[in-house]
Amino acid sequence: MAGNSFGDLFRFTSWGESHGLAIGVVVDGVPSLIKLSEDDIQPFLDKRKPGNSKHTTQRKEDDIVKIMSGVYQGKTTGTPLSMIIENKDQRSKDYSEIEKTFRPGHADFTYMEKYGIRDPRGGGRSSARETACRVAVGAIANKILKTFLDSNVKIRGAMVQMGEIALIDDKWSWDEVEKNDFFCPSKKTAVEWDKYLKDVRKNGSSVGAVIEIHASGIPAGLGEPVYDKLDADLAKAFMSINAVKGVEIGAGFESAFLTGEQNADEIRTGKVFTSNNAGGILGGISTGQDIVVRFAVKPTSSILTPKKSITKTGKETTISTKGRHDPCVGIRAVPVGEAMMAIVLADHLLRNRGLNNK
Amino acid sequence: MAGNSFGDLFRFTSWGESHGLAIGVVVDGVPSLIKLSEDDIQPFLDKRKPGNSKHTTQRKEDDIVKIMSGVYQGKTTGTPLSMIIENKDQRSKDYSEIEKTFRPGHADFTYMEKYGIRDPRGGGRSSARETACRVAVGAIANKILKTFLDSNVKIRGAMVQMGEIALIDDKWSWDEVEKNDFFCPSKKTAVEWDKYLKDVRKNGSSVGAVIEIHASGIPAGLGEPVYDKLDADLAKAFMSINAVKGVEIGAGFESAFLTGEQNADEIRTGKVFTSNNAGGILGGISTGQDIVVRFAVKPTSSILTPKKSITKTGKETTISTKGRHDPCVGIRAVPVGEAMMAIVLADHLLRNRGLNNK
Amino acid sequence: MAGNSFGDLFRFTSWGESHGLAIGVVVDGVPSLIKLSEDDIQPFLDKRKPGNSKHTTQRKEDDIVKIMSGVYQGKTTGTPLSMIIENKDQRSKDYSEIEKTFRPGHADFTYMEKYGIRDPRGGGRSSARETACRVAVGAIANKILKTFLDSNVKIRGAMVQMGEIALIDDKWSWDEVEKNDFFCPSKKTAVEWDKYLKDVRKNGSSVGAVIEIHASGIPAGLGEPVYDKLDADLAKAFMSINAVKGVEIGAGFESAFLTGEQNADEIRTGKVFTSNNAGGILGGISTGQDIVVRFAVKPTSSILTPKKSITKTGKETTISTKGRHDPCVGIRAVPVGEAMMAIVLADHLLRNRGLNNK
Amino acid sequence: MAGNSFGDLFRFTSWGESHGLAIGVVVDGVPSLIKLSEDDIQPFLDKRKPGNSKHTTQRKEDDIVKIMSGVYQGKTTGTPLSMIIENKDQRSKDYSEIEKTFRPGHADFTYMEKYGIRDPRGGGRSSARETACRVAVGAIANKILKTFLDSNVKIRGAMVQMGEIALIDDKWSWDEVEKNDFFCPSKKTAVEWDKYLKDVRKNGSSVGAVIEIHASGIPAGLGEPVYDKLDADLAKAFMSINAVKGVEIGAGFESAFLTGEQNADEIRTGKVFTSNNAGGILGGISTGQDIVVRFAVKPTSSILTPKKSITKTGKETTISTKGRHDPCVGIRAVPVGEAMMAIVLADHLLRNRGLNNK
Repeated sequence: MAGNSFGDLFRFTSWGESHGLAIGVVVDGVPSLIKLSEDDIQPFLDKRKPGNSKHTTQRKEDDIVKIMSGVYQGKTTGTPLSMIIENKDQRSKDYSEIEKTFRPGHADFTYMEKYGIRDPRGGGRSSARETACRVAVGAIANKILKTFLDSNVKIRGAMVQMGEIALIDDKWSWDEVEKNDFFCPSKKTAVEWDKYLKDVRKNGSSVGAVIEIHASGIPAGLGEPVYDKLDADLAKAFMSINAVKGVEIGAGFESAFLTGEQNADEIRTGKVFTSNNAGGILGGISTGQDIVVRFAVKPTSSILTPKKSITKTGKETTISTKGRHDPCVGIRAVPVGEAMMAIVLADHLLRNRGLNNK
Repeated sequence: MAGNSFGDLFRFTSWGESHGLAIGVVVDGVPSLIKLSEDDIQPFLDKRKPGNSKHTTQRKEDDIVKIMSGVYQGKTTGTPLSMIIENKDQRSKDYSEIEKTFRPGHADFTYMEKYGIRDPRGGGRSSARETACRVAVGAIANKILKTFLDSNVKIRGAMVQMGEIALIDDKWSWDEVEKNDFFCPSKKTAVEWDKYLKDVRKNGSSVGAVIEIHASGIPAGLGEPVYDKLDADLAKAFMSINAVKGVEIGAGFESAFLTGEQNADEIRTGKVFTSNNAGGILGGISTGQDIVVRFAVKPTSSILTPKKSITKTGKETTISTKGRHDPCVGIRAVPVGEAMMAIVLADHLLRNRGLNNK
Repeated sequence: MAGNSFGDLFRFTSWGESHGLAIGVVVDGVPSLIKLSEDDIQPFLDKRKPGNSKHTTQRKEDDIVKIMSGVYQGKTTGTPLSMIIENKDQRSKDYSEIEKTFRPGHADFTYMEKYGIRDPRGGGRSSARETACRVAVGAIANKILKTFLDSNVKIRGAMVQMGEIALIDDKWSWDEVEKNDFFCPSKKTAVEWDKYLKDVRKNGSSVGAVIEIHASGIPAGLGEPVYDKLDADLAKAFMSINAVKGVEIGAGFESAFLTGEQNADEIRTGKVFTSNNAGGILGGISTGQDIVVRFAVKPTSSILTPKKSITKTGKETTISTKGRHDPCVGIRAVPVGEAMMAIVLADHLLRNRGLNNK
Repeated sequence: MAGNSFGDLFRFTSWGESHGLAIGVVVDGVPSLIKLSEDDIQPFLDKRKPGNSKHTTQRKEDDIVKIMSGVYQGKTTGTPLSMIIENKDQRSKDYSEIEKTFRPGHADFTYMEKYGIRDPRGGGRSSARETACRVAVGAIANKILKTFLDSNVKIRGAMVQMGEIALIDDKWSWDEVEKNDFFCPSKKTAVEWDKYLKDVRKNGSSVGAVIEIHASGIPAGLGEPVYDKLDADLAKAFMSINAVKGVEIGAGFESAFLTGEQNADEIRTGKVFTSNNAGGILGGISTGQDIVVRFAVKPTSSILTPKKSITKTGKETTISTKGRHDPCVGIRAVPVGEAMMAIVLADHLLRNRGLNNK
């Protein structure tokens, strides 16, 4: 297939370019009789939308979602749910330079190599604008999880590393996450990051980040071995997010350094584990513990410093980015990561419902 | 779907339990007229098979592959290729303890939670024995790549970290990789690892590892954005391998620490990049540079030290492993990783052939 | 999956209810660099749209298609093509009776049984209005066929039976098809049908039809045995059209009456067949002859005569249809059938391109 | 995909050539904890196997199925079920003529056109031998239906037309079906067919047939509109069977001749329909009435009379079939049709379980 769909029983297809008329997504596999309106989805989009803080891109988009189908009298009908988000802030900017030259670190070069044509306006299809669709679908996935599981299902994300600065204390607070511009779980760290990122922005530079997503309240038994393991599908989901270069589950890369004694989580009465190096997944199936995923976001390649590149016709040149851009795209990746977690879990929940005979 | 298939146009389904009659795999989407016999596949299996070195499990399996269909007079016919590998060394061991108790770090608990039944003999379906099927398919994927691309396509893997010990010098040699027991690209390091692993084995312990896989000779343009990005499919492929807890592309998690200036690979005449932090993939599409993936393998949870766990009926107990096991399962993960790389690339190559209009 | 998508490499997902804001479709797998605008699609929609003749529903819909994505400077970019058609004529009619009672022969009962909810306005998702999306996708499929095959590819349909009246002479004329209200290939027959259908309409009744679709200029070799045979996928495609109850290829049901001598098409120099009982398909693969499919459309169940039924709560009642309806829905099924033929062929063409090594 | 798989949540992939070592099938999506052994499958295969009566091919195959995986202690484990059937009667016959010449009405020509190579021994992959795999999977599908539905689910088939001779009386008896060589529901007709077919065989000729399959005890609500309608998937399933040229549901092609008054099935208290022209499906979803499918099987093209054809190199020639062949392949299509019905229903049952929120 051509790649613009995700999921199996709960499946969606997104469409749209950064500066086209609109972007949108069609979700198939939404069970019927779930209460749903735009009000259930908009808050998720508001969390992701550009211009939220001084640290994210200054592009102004209201990102107002409109449900076009699949809902009748406030409830899902089991038919496809089509959602559209208009592109409002399509500055009639001059794209002639980007059109001619491949920006290093961007998909300009590869899209041209693959398709022989590309829409250069704002990155076209390769723009992170597409992630708004993921967030909208994530809102529905959350609804599905809450419909079929008990209501204390919770999916939450936080940034745990920004550029060179990790969390500087051990005080992880989910409350704090909602209070600063970085979805940072440590108040002290947020202050440091604020200073750091101001400098980065001033220099026209950018930095990467590591995000961590937790899902709690997920029952044991989700995931389809051996190729559609829960962690395998999560890895695909997270790696498909723009700018992501690494994904790990539980102890992740750290587990390479551990011994078997250190790594294996012991099990106690009540199916409780004494640790969670597994990140809530064993053999590709959920254990009932929190599912923990971390992913690395590279620094955006849209920077002020000129970089060497070539033109469409192969001539050497340099290029720098003048447009509005995020110094740390990792910030807005947090709600996107939460969405992908919810999406993968909802899909596996439905699949498990279909196949389950326990 | 129930999870035992992988790929799209080049697609396979594996079957079999560790101690059943046999394991096998059916490959659909093998183009016709490719010269193929067991001799093309067996060397790949030999590289992976247990008992290869003193450092891998002492289970004796010849892992002789037999092609059951899809080949006529030495050439593929375009019909499904079925391959079978008999399980020879199925010691009529006493599985009663494993049958009753969930081994920490293994899939025993989750399979029982999901299915309400599990085949405890040698881990059943969750055993790494299934990876032999991946390696057999990888051999065919290699054939496909060589058929449609020029012949200098090369897929190679190496172990770059074993437990606490990283490569101790910068002398990366692909020749060296084939000369030691660890697929280690550094002679010096291999000596250290040998000592280290002997200790680990003596203590009945185990260690994790990091593996790196390179694909060279891959043209630009492979990968289907935005959900079936080449890196997304690679992430899924690698994360689906037993015991893998993390996957990264190019600079991977390191990229979180970089600035935009440091991270973006510049482009020069001839579509050559001056660095490869991207790991050969931009926007989910191959750049024509080497594709570089690293993945982390946790230490096997089969260790001598007793660990706390519960029985099927929920009673607390302890369990240790007495069987034959690898102190570092990462070693045998190298050919498996090479196979998954070849598989993902072959699939995307065929998909790109189908959709390409450049 | 939840059923609103069709195709493999060339794949689309449609959405929308009869009386919602709009209907639409997202097409993934459109190769890049194909010239495309609304002008290429609109004529196909115009052929299908209601109110075209006195014999089709009097609902007034302009069915103006709008391309929302996937095209840049008049050419496809390889990214998803989203198309939207607004629902203009949503009479604020009283749906309370339909809402309460299941119309016999309609999907009212089964949608409620399946989903526990249904959008009763104009049939909601089960309305034939959805077929406008198929026709729009068919226009793109035609473009793909013309791009990769030589330009004399031709897909044409005709009605060959209306109610009890078959074609009354042997003068099949494709030119004639475009000249009458029935896509009838025989002038004489068209006159008879006109009289016949006026009576049917006057009586508030309806009749069924048989449609025949031909594809010429299709090369040998399309189709993927043994489950995705070209004829199997065509059967699915046509049977998925609203009101279709039967599909046959070539001699079809007639072949049951034939002997082997009568049925087998002989082959002559130049790969020419002396007859085409096979309908252009052998073993699920195209032969290079014309592909010929026929399908039966039942009479619409929307009739004036009251029929016995039950209400949502299970009480017995009667119901008749007062709204605007087609006395012969088969007429408008002709362009829909042409679309489905083009869609299946385009998909198999791309799949064959991907897998082909001849 | 390359076409050798069928189904979505309940999905299988078959492999093997007519005269290879074996044929087989891997079934993924079998729920766990279902009692299953070869004894549950063999009777289905025995019903289909060649040499059952004087009227079917004299090829001798025991068709002994062996389960290779997915079952532990007599119960399914939720992992893939691999089944193998050895090819015993591979006469070391001379295939040189078939190898060189395309038999009219067979897939010889199209396989060569598609793949550039074909296994000519007994028809290779295009042989109806593959249908043994379908029958084995059908046995498992039946088990799934009985597991999740109440036990009076029943899937039964009968031949209703052989060549020119239809059922000659109205006495349809399911008991009678099991008593004659033709799965004929009318005793009188079976006698006529016996005489008729003897003549056909004597003349080295062959005849077509029409088969009818009924599924009773199927609840309302199965089927996923609008493309994976239950009837659409049934149409694909049946059309994919070797030699099938037409499929119809309920009144089928006959419905084209009916008026809306005649065709629409009225509904009465208890969700009972007064007729079943719909064949148990409305809007692609089951109504709870019997599901009724008919399909047409063409006469086998393997006949004694020489037919004109061409050789691989394009030279004109004639060819006749000397081998062992069925004068009416429709007979053995009855158990295959029953299998496909069970398979489609089992798949839709699981999908509905996954998505259902009623």
